[in-house]
Amino acid sequence: MNTIASSQERLRKQIAFIIEIDKMKNELRKNIIIDKSRRENDAEHSWHIAVMAMLLVEYTDLPQLDLLKIIKMLLVHDIVEIYAGDTFFYDDQANKDKVEREQAAADKIFALLPADQGLELRSLWEEYEAMQTNDALYAGAMDRLQPFLLHYYTQGQVWLQEHITSEKIYTRIRPLEKSMPRLWPVITNMIQEAIEKGYVTK
Amino acid sequence: MNTIASSQERLRKQIAFIIEIDKMKNELRKNIIIDKSRRENDAEHSWHIAVMAMLLVEYTDLPQLDLLKIIKMLLVHDIVEIYAGDTFFYDDQANKDKVEREQAAADKIFALLPADQGLELRSLWEEYEAMQTNDALYAGAMDRLQPFLLHYYTQGQVWLQEHITSEKIYTRIRPLEKSMPRLWPVITNMIQEAIEKGYVTK
Repeated sequence: MNTIASSQERLRKQIAFIIEIDKMKNELRKNIIIDKSRRENDAEHSWHIAVMAMLLVEYTDLPQLDLLKIIKMLLVHDIVEIYAGDTFFYDDQANKDKVEREQAAADKIFALLPADQGLELRSLWEEYEAMQTNDALYAGAMDRLQPFLLHYYTQGQVWLQEHITSEKIYTRIRPLEKSMPRLWPVITNMIQEAIEKGYVTK
Repeated sequence: MNTIASSQERLRKQIAFIIEIDKMKNELRKNIIIDKSRRENDAEHSWHIAVMAMLLVEYTDLPQLDLLKIIKMLLVHDIVEIYAGDTFFYDDQANKDKVEREQAAADKIFALLPADQGLELRSLWEEYEAMQTNDALYAGAMDRLQPFLLHYYTQGQVWLQEHITSEKIYTRIRPLEKSMPRLWPVITNMIQEAIEKGYVTK
Protein backbone atom coordinates (compact mmCIF):
# COMPACT_ATOMS: atom_id res chain seq x y z
CA MET A 1 0.00 0.00 0.00
CA ASN A 2 1.21 3.46 -0.85
CA THR A 3 1.32 5.20 2.52
CA ILE A 4 1.68 8.72 1.17
CA ALA A 5 -1.30 8.30 -1.15
CA SER A 6 -3.40 6.78 1.61
CA SER A 7 -2.54 9.49 4.15
CA GLN A 8 -3.37 12.12 1.53
CA GLU A 9 -6.68 10.38 0.89
CA ARG A 10 -7.36 10.48 4.64
CA LEU A 11 -6.64 14.20 4.82
CA ARG A 12 -8.72 14.82 1.68
CA LYS A 13 -11.70 13.22 3.46
CA GLN A 14 -11.16 15.24 6.62
CA ILE A 15 -10.99 18.49 4.65
CA ALA A 16 -14.11 17.52 2.65
CA PHE A 17 -15.97 17.06 5.94
CA ILE A 18 -14.65 20.33 7.38
CA ILE A 19 -15.83 22.18 4.27
CA GLU A 20 -19.21 20.40 4.13
CA ILE A 21 -20.11 21.24 7.74
CA ASP A 22 -19.70 24.92 6.88
CA LYS A 23 -23.39 24.49 5.90
CA MET A 24 -24.19 24.54 9.64
CA LYS A 25 -23.77 28.31 9.31
CA ASN A 26 -26.83 28.44 7.07
CA GLU A 27 -28.98 25.99 8.99
CA LEU A 28 -31.47 28.27 10.70
CA ARG A 29 -33.19 27.48 13.98
CA LYS A 30 -36.47 28.88 15.26
CA ASN A 31 -34.61 30.85 17.96
CA ILE A 32 -33.67 34.45 17.43
CA ILE A 33 -30.42 35.91 18.74
CA ILE A 34 -30.49 38.31 21.69
CA ASP A 35 -30.57 41.53 19.66
CA LYS A 36 -33.63 40.12 17.81
CA SER A 37 -32.07 40.98 14.45
CA ARG A 38 -32.36 37.48 12.98
CA ARG A 39 -32.68 33.74 13.61
CA GLU A 40 -29.80 31.79 15.08
CA ASN A 41 -27.98 29.13 13.07
CA ASP A 42 -26.75 25.70 14.14
CA ALA A 43 -23.05 26.64 14.20
CA GLU A 44 -23.70 29.55 16.56
CA HIS A 45 -25.99 27.45 18.75
CA SER A 46 -23.41 24.66 18.98
CA TRP A 47 -20.69 27.10 19.99
CA HIS A 48 -22.93 28.72 22.60
CA ILE A 49 -23.93 25.48 24.33
CA ALA A 50 -20.34 24.25 24.35
CA VAL A 51 -19.31 27.38 26.28
CA MET A 52 -22.31 26.92 28.61
CA ALA A 53 -21.21 23.33 29.28
CA MET A 54 -17.85 24.69 30.48
CA LEU A 55 -19.51 27.11 32.88
CA LEU A 56 -22.52 25.34 34.40
CA VAL A 57 -21.23 21.90 35.36
CA GLU A 58 -21.33 22.85 39.04
CA TYR A 59 -25.16 22.75 38.94
CA THR A 60 -25.48 19.06 38.19
CA ASP A 61 -25.07 16.03 40.43
CA LEU A 62 -24.70 13.62 37.52
CA PRO A 63 -21.65 11.55 38.45
CA GLN A 64 -18.46 10.97 36.45
CA LEU A 65 -19.04 13.45 33.67
CA ASP A 66 -16.44 13.55 30.89
CA LEU A 67 -16.40 17.22 29.88
CA LEU A 68 -14.27 16.67 26.77
CA LYS A 69 -16.72 14.08 25.50
CA ILE A 70 -19.68 16.30 26.38
CA ILE A 71 -18.25 19.28 24.50
CA LYS A 72 -17.40 17.11 21.47
CA MET A 73 -20.97 15.80 21.60
CA LEU A 74 -22.41 19.30 21.70
CA LEU A 75 -20.18 20.48 18.84
CA VAL A 76 -21.46 17.72 16.53
CA HIS A 77 -24.95 16.93 17.88
CA ASP A 78 -26.74 19.03 15.23
CA ILE A 79 -24.52 18.23 12.23
CA VAL A 80 -27.12 15.84 10.77
CA GLU A 81 -29.40 18.87 10.35
CA ILE A 82 -27.29 19.91 7.35
CA TYR A 83 -29.32 17.31 5.44
CA ALA A 84 -32.26 16.64 7.77
CA GLY A 85 -33.13 20.24 8.62
CA ASP A 86 -33.82 21.64 12.07
CA THR A 87 -36.88 20.11 13.69
CA PHE A 88 -38.51 22.57 16.08
CA PHE A 89 -39.30 20.73 19.29
CA TYR A 90 -42.84 22.04 19.32
CA ASP A 91 -43.58 21.01 15.71
CA ASP A 92 -45.49 17.71 16.15
CA GLN A 93 -45.81 17.08 12.40
CA ALA A 94 -42.09 17.44 11.64
CA ASN A 95 -41.18 15.31 14.65
CA LYS A 96 -43.01 12.28 13.21
CA ASP A 97 -40.31 11.37 10.69
CA LYS A 98 -37.42 13.12 12.49
CA VAL A 99 -35.65 9.85 13.38
CA GLU A 100 -35.71 8.46 9.82
CA ARG A 101 -34.61 11.77 8.30
CA GLU A 102 -31.76 12.14 10.77
CA GLN A 103 -30.52 8.56 10.46
CA ALA A 104 -30.30 8.97 6.69
CA ALA A 105 -28.50 12.28 7.16
CA ALA A 106 -26.05 10.68 9.61
CA ASP A 107 -25.29 7.90 7.09
CA LYS A 108 -24.39 10.59 4.57
CA ILE A 109 -22.48 13.16 6.62
CA PHE A 110 -20.33 10.88 8.79
CA ALA A 111 -19.37 8.80 5.72
CA LEU A 112 -17.39 11.79 4.46
CA LEU A 113 -14.80 11.20 7.20
CA PRO A 114 -12.19 8.43 7.43
CA ALA A 115 -13.98 5.38 8.88
CA ASP A 116 -12.53 5.62 12.42
CA GLN A 117 -13.45 9.29 12.81
CA GLY A 118 -16.84 8.85 11.16
CA LEU A 119 -17.55 6.14 13.71
CA GLU A 120 -16.39 8.29 16.63
CA LEU A 121 -18.58 11.23 15.66
CA ARG A 122 -21.52 9.02 14.83
CA SER A 123 -21.36 7.33 18.23
CA LEU A 124 -21.20 10.73 19.94
CA TRP A 125 -24.34 11.67 18.02
CA GLU A 126 -26.07 8.34 18.75
CA GLU A 127 -25.21 8.62 22.45
CA TYR A 128 -26.66 12.11 22.46
CA GLU A 129 -29.85 11.03 20.71
CA ALA A 130 -30.36 8.01 23.00
CA MET A 131 -30.14 10.35 26.01
CA GLN A 132 -29.27 7.52 28.41
CA THR A 133 -25.76 8.30 29.69
CA ASN A 134 -24.91 11.01 32.18
CA ASP A 135 -22.78 12.78 29.57
CA ALA A 136 -25.75 12.91 27.19
CA LEU A 137 -28.09 14.06 29.95
CA TYR A 138 -25.83 16.99 30.85
CA ALA A 139 -25.30 17.85 27.17
CA GLY A 140 -29.06 17.65 26.62
CA ALA A 141 -29.66 20.02 29.54
CA MET A 142 -27.44 22.64 27.84
CA ASP A 143 -29.28 22.11 24.55
CA ARG A 144 -32.62 22.81 26.25
CA LEU A 145 -31.43 25.61 28.53
CA GLN A 146 -29.81 27.74 25.81
CA PRO A 147 -32.94 28.31 23.69
CA PHE A 148 -34.91 28.84 26.91
CA LEU A 149 -32.51 31.64 27.87
CA LEU A 150 -32.63 33.14 24.36
CA HIS A 151 -36.43 33.10 24.38
CA TYR A 152 -36.62 34.62 27.86
CA TYR A 153 -34.10 37.38 27.10
CA THR A 154 -35.88 38.28 23.86
CA GLN A 155 -39.08 38.81 25.84
CA GLY A 156 -40.66 35.61 24.55
CA GLN A 157 -40.92 36.83 20.97
CA VAL A 158 -40.71 33.28 19.55
CA TRP A 159 -42.86 31.77 22.32
CA LEU A 160 -45.62 34.23 21.50
CA GLN A 161 -45.23 34.01 17.75
CA GLU A 162 -45.28 30.19 17.78
CA HIS A 163 -48.02 30.00 20.43
CA ILE A 164 -45.83 28.07 22.86
CA THR A 165 -47.64 28.00 26.21
CA SER A 166 -45.88 27.85 29.57
CA GLU A 167 -47.16 24.29 29.86
CA LYS A 168 -45.28 23.33 26.68
CA ILE A 169 -42.15 25.04 27.98
CA TYR A 170 -42.39 22.95 31.14
CA THR A 171 -42.65 19.76 29.06
CA ARG A 172 -39.54 20.76 27.13
CA ILE A 173 -37.41 21.88 30.09
CA ARG A 174 -38.62 19.30 32.65
CA PRO A 175 -35.56 16.96 32.28
CA LEU A 176 -33.49 19.67 34.00
CA GLU A 177 -35.42 19.10 37.23
CA LYS A 178 -33.41 15.89 37.61
CA SER A 179 -30.24 16.65 35.66
CA MET A 180 -29.68 20.20 36.98
CA PRO A 181 -31.46 20.23 40.36
CA ARG A 182 -29.78 23.44 41.55
CA LEU A 183 -30.91 25.28 38.42
CA TRP A 184 -34.49 24.08 38.56
CA PRO A 185 -35.86 26.65 41.07
CA VAL A 186 -34.36 29.44 38.96
CA ILE A 187 -35.95 28.02 35.82
CA THR A 188 -39.39 27.72 37.38
CA ASN A 189 -39.05 31.30 38.67
CA MET A 190 -38.17 32.50 35.21
CA ILE A 191 -41.19 30.76 33.67
CA GLN A 192 -43.38 32.33 36.34
CA GLU A 193 -41.91 35.74 35.59
CA ALA A 194 -42.31 35.16 31.86
CA ILE A 195 -46.02 34.57 32.41
CA GLU A 196 -46.34 37.68 34.58
CA LYS A 197 -44.45 39.83 32.07
CA GLY A 198 -46.50 38.52 29.14
CA TYR A 199 -43.57 36.78 27.42
CA VAL A 200 -45.64 33.60 27.25
CA THR A 201 -49.25 32.59 27.70
CA LYS A 202 -50.15 30.32 30.57
CA MET B 1 -23.08 34.85 54.64
CA ASN B 2 -26.36 33.95 53.05
CA THR B 3 -25.48 30.92 50.90
CA ILE B 4 -28.67 30.92 48.84
CA ALA B 5 -28.30 34.59 47.97
CA SER B 6 -24.62 34.17 47.12
CA SER B 7 -25.25 31.13 44.92
CA GLN B 8 -28.00 33.03 43.13
CA GLU B 9 -25.61 35.93 42.62
CA ARG B 10 -23.11 33.50 41.14
CA LEU B 11 -25.66 32.08 38.72
CA ARG B 12 -26.85 35.59 37.84
CA LYS B 13 -23.29 36.44 36.79
CA GLN B 14 -22.92 33.27 34.75
CA ILE B 15 -26.18 33.94 32.92
CA ALA B 16 -25.20 37.58 32.30
CA PHE B 17 -21.97 36.35 30.67
CA ILE B 18 -23.80 33.72 28.61
CA ILE B 19 -26.21 36.38 27.33
CA GLU B 20 -23.46 38.96 26.70
CA ILE B 21 -21.36 36.60 24.57
CA ASP B 22 -24.35 36.20 22.25
CA LYS B 23 -22.78 39.28 20.63
CA MET B 24 -20.15 36.96 19.11
CA LYS B 25 -22.89 36.09 16.60
CA ASN B 26 -22.75 39.64 15.26
CA GLU B 27 -18.97 40.07 15.33
CA LEU B 28 -18.08 39.80 11.65
CA ARG B 29 -14.76 38.56 10.35
CA LYS B 30 -13.17 39.30 6.99
CA ASN B 31 -13.72 35.68 5.89
CA ILE B 32 -16.73 34.70 3.89
CA ILE B 33 -18.50 31.37 4.39
CA ILE B 34 -18.19 28.64 1.76
CA ASP B 35 -21.35 29.51 -0.20
CA LYS B 36 -20.01 33.10 -0.49
CA SER B 37 -23.35 34.51 0.68
CA ARG B 38 -21.93 36.57 3.56
CA ARG B 39 -19.10 37.12 6.02
CA GLU B 40 -18.48 34.68 8.84
CA ASN B 41 -18.99 35.67 12.46
CA ASP B 42 -16.87 34.86 15.51
CA ALA B 43 -19.31 32.34 17.02
CA GLU B 44 -19.35 30.31 13.79
CA HIS B 45 -15.58 30.53 13.44
CA SER B 46 -15.03 29.38 17.03
CA TRP B 47 -17.33 26.40 16.53
CA HIS B 48 -15.63 25.45 13.28
CA ILE B 49 -12.08 25.48 14.67
CA ALA B 50 -13.15 23.53 17.75
CA VAL B 51 -14.45 20.75 15.49
CA MET B 52 -11.24 20.93 13.43
CA ALA B 53 -9.19 20.54 16.61
CA MET B 54 -11.04 17.26 17.28
CA LEU B 55 -10.23 15.93 13.81
CA LEU B 56 -6.69 17.02 12.95
CA VAL B 57 -4.67 16.28 16.07
CA GLU B 58 -2.97 13.34 14.31
CA TYR B 59 -1.02 15.80 12.13
CA THR B 60 0.96 17.38 14.94
CA ASP B 61 3.96 16.10 16.88
CA LEU B 62 3.51 18.61 19.68
CA PRO B 63 3.77 16.49 22.84
CA GLN B 64 1.31 16.16 25.71
CA LEU B 65 -1.59 18.07 24.24
CA ASP B 66 -4.64 18.55 26.44
CA LEU B 67 -7.52 18.48 23.96
CA LEU B 68 -10.14 19.65 26.47
CA LYS B 69 -8.05 22.68 27.31
CA ILE B 70 -7.38 23.35 23.61
CA ILE B 71 -11.07 23.23 22.72
CA LYS B 72 -11.99 25.47 25.67
CA MET B 73 -9.28 27.87 24.50
CA LEU B 74 -10.64 27.90 20.96
CA LEU B 75 -14.21 28.43 22.16
CA VAL B 76 -13.23 31.58 24.09
CA HIS B 77 -10.17 32.88 22.24
CA ASP B 78 -12.12 35.51 20.28
CA ILE B 79 -14.56 36.60 23.00
CA VAL B 80 -12.63 39.83 23.64
CA GLU B 81 -13.58 40.87 20.10
CA ILE B 82 -17.09 41.62 21.36
CA TYR B 83 -15.60 44.88 22.62
CA ALA B 84 -12.28 45.09 20.76
CA GLY B 85 -13.55 44.17 17.28
CA ASP B 86 -11.98 41.68 14.90
CA THR B 87 -8.49 42.70 13.79
CA PHE B 88 -7.74 41.36 10.32
CA PHE B 89 -4.28 39.81 10.38
CA TYR B 90 -3.24 41.69 7.27
CA ASP B 91 -4.39 45.11 8.56
CA ASP B 92 -1.13 46.68 9.80
CA GLN B 93 -2.82 49.84 11.06
CA ALA B 94 -5.39 48.05 13.23
CA ASN B 95 -2.75 45.68 14.59
CA LYS B 96 -0.82 48.57 16.17
CA ASP B 97 -3.17 49.00 19.14
CA LYS B 98 -4.63 45.48 19.07
CA VAL B 99 -3.00 44.44 22.36
CA GLU B 100 -4.25 47.47 24.30
CA ARG B 101 -7.76 47.21 22.87
CA GLU B 102 -7.97 43.51 23.65
CA GLN B 103 -6.58 43.79 27.19
CA ALA B 104 -9.21 46.41 28.00
CA ALA B 105 -11.88 44.20 26.45
CA ALA B 106 -10.69 41.20 28.49
CA ASP B 107 -10.88 43.26 31.70
CA LYS B 108 -14.50 44.01 30.89
CA ILE B 109 -15.84 40.71 29.55
CA PHE B 110 -14.23 38.26 31.99
CA ALA B 111 -15.29 40.44 34.94
CA LEU B 112 -18.88 39.51 34.20
CA LEU B 113 -18.21 35.98 35.46
CA PRO B 114 -17.70 34.83 39.07
CA ALA B 115 -14.04 35.49 39.91
CA ASP B 116 -12.82 31.88 39.66
CA GLN B 117 -14.37 31.32 36.24
CA GLY B 118 -13.37 34.75 34.97
CA LEU B 119 -9.81 33.89 35.92
CA GLU B 120 -9.97 30.48 34.22
CA LEU B 121 -11.25 31.91 30.95
CA ARG B 122 -8.85 34.83 31.07
CA SER B 123 -5.86 32.55 31.54
CA LEU B 124 -7.02 30.41 28.64
CA TRP B 125 -7.15 33.57 26.54
CA GLU B 126 -3.76 34.82 27.83
CA GLU B 127 -2.17 31.44 27.15
CA TYR B 128 -3.58 31.54 23.64
CA GLU B 129 -2.31 35.08 23.01
CA ALA B 130 1.17 34.33 24.39
CA MET B 131 1.43 31.40 21.95
CA GLN B 132 4.16 29.68 23.98
CA THR B 133 2.64 26.38 25.14
CA ASN B 134 2.04 23.36 22.95
CA ASP B 135 -1.71 23.63 23.58
CA ALA B 136 -1.70 27.23 22.33
CA LEU B 137 0.45 26.32 19.33
CA TYR B 138 -1.97 23.60 18.23
CA ALA B 139 -4.98 25.87 18.87
CA GLY B 140 -3.25 28.64 16.91
CA ALA B 141 -2.66 26.28 14.00
CA MET B 142 -6.42 25.62 13.78
CA ASP B 143 -7.13 29.36 13.95
CA ARG B 144 -4.83 29.96 10.98
CA LEU B 145 -5.79 26.89 8.98
CA GLN B 146 -9.55 27.47 9.05
CA PRO B 147 -9.59 30.89 7.30
CA PHE B 148 -6.96 29.54 4.87
CA LEU B 149 -9.35 26.71 3.93
CA LEU B 150 -12.31 29.10 3.67
CA HIS B 151 -10.32 31.43 1.42
CA TYR B 152 -9.08 28.58 -0.78
CA TYR B 153 -12.52 26.99 -1.15
CA THR B 154 -14.10 30.33 -2.04
CA GLN B 155 -11.61 30.69 -4.88
CA GLY B 156 -9.61 33.34 -3.07
CA GLN B 157 -12.37 35.94 -3.20
CA VAL B 158 -11.14 37.67 -0.03
CA TRP B 159 -7.43 37.25 -0.89
CA LEU B 160 -8.03 39.01 -4.20
CA GLN B 161 -10.34 41.66 -2.80
CA GLU B 162 -7.95 42.53 0.05
CA HIS B 163 -4.84 42.26 -2.16
CA ILE B 164 -3.31 39.50 -0.02
CA THR B 165 -0.35 38.09 -1.94
CA SER B 166 0.87 34.51 -1.65
CA GLU B 167 3.89 35.86 0.20
CA LYS B 168 1.61 37.33 2.88
CA ILE B 169 -0.27 34.04 3.12
CA TYR B 170 3.03 32.26 3.72
CA THR B 171 3.88 34.70 6.53
CA ARG B 172 0.52 34.02 8.15
CA ILE B 173 0.51 30.23 7.80
CA ARG B 174 4.24 29.60 8.35
CA PRO B 175 3.90 28.53 12.04
CA LEU B 176 2.20 25.36 10.77
CA GLU B 177 5.46 24.22 9.20
CA LYS B 178 6.64 23.41 12.74
CA SER B 179 3.38 22.77 14.57
CA MET B 180 1.69 20.63 11.87
CA PRO B 181 4.61 19.17 9.88
CA ARG B 182 2.50 16.52 8.14
CA LEU B 183 0.06 19.16 6.90
CA TRP B 184 2.73 21.53 5.64
CA PRO B 185 3.36 19.92 2.21
CA VAL B 186 -0.39 19.95 1.55
CA ILE B 187 -0.59 23.64 2.50
CA THR B 188 2.30 24.64 0.26
CA ASN B 189 0.70 22.65 -2.57
CA MET B 190 -2.58 24.46 -2.04
CA ILE B 191 -0.87 27.86 -2.13
CA GLN B 192 0.89 26.85 -5.34
CA GLU B 193 -2.41 25.75 -6.84
CA ALA B 194 -4.09 28.94 -5.64
CA ILE B 195 -1.49 30.94 -7.58
CA GLU B 196 -1.95 28.80 -10.69
CA LYS B 197 -5.74 29.05 -10.53
CA GLY B 198 -5.64 32.81 -9.99
CA TYR B 199 -7.10 32.70 -6.44
CA VAL B 200 -4.19 34.83 -5.25
CA THR B 201 -1.43 36.93 -6.77
CA LYS B 202 2.13 35.81 -6.37
